[in-house]
Amino acid sequence: MLRRSDCPISCTLDLIGDKWTLVVLRDILFFQKSRFDEFLDSPEKISTNILTDRLHKLEGAGLIVKAPYSNHRLRMAYTATEKGRTLIPILKQIVEWGLANLEDTKAKSPPTSENANG
Amino acid sequence: MLRRSDCPISCTLDLIGDKWTLVVLRDILFFQKSRFDEFLDSPEKISTNILTDRLHKLEGAGLIVKAPYSNHRLRMAYTATEKGRTLIPILKQIVEWGLANLEDTKAKSPPTSENANG
Repeated sequence: MLRRSDCPISCTLDLIGDKWTLVVLRDILFFQKSRFDEFLDSPEKISTNILTDRLHKLEGAGLIVKAPYSNHRLRMAYTATEKGRTLIPILKQIVEWGLANLEDTKAKSPPTSENANG
Repeated sequence: MLRRSDCPISCTLDLIGDKWTLVVLRDILFFQKSRFDEFLDSPEKISTNILTDRLHKLEGAGLIVKAPYSNHRLRMAYTATEKGRTLIPILKQIVEWGLANLEDTKAKSPPTSENANG
């Protein structure tokens, strides 16, 4: 990937600086979603081509891995790597900031509190 | 602004989820830059049209304010509002994450440590 400078902010944004990447990671890390259809089902209504692109980029950056589930080899389940989980503090800061500064935002409870507190 | 959901992550990304907004805020908050030419001079080499757009959005969101400097009324200086400064914890998490996870990134010392620690 071409980087714009050696600034850690600029380089991190080269990776996650868009409207969708962290929404997909949110689903994986906080809502334990793992399957393509589950991501499509989120309220933001990501399009299939953007979702395919972001999953590919997240995998290429070592932030998620995919593995086939059930016997259908084309059906993939996506999970966060340890490196992917290191983004949780950034996501939590964003949640806090949004709740404090943007009207009518609501934090939904994840299915279990384990990942959100991890 | 159209929001995609009431999720604080999604709504925050509607505002700052791109490659440039936080780079401009970095310059204002950590490097005490305030003038159009100073932003253009940063190593990422933002283009004038993107810079104009992001300054306009940041101002519209109440994160920065502009005021004329010297006697030339078209020359504006941009500074962060209190609301803009509340993004410092997110920026700091991004700096930490980049330094820990992305090779060959370097944190530059700001002119004074006041804003970076604020």
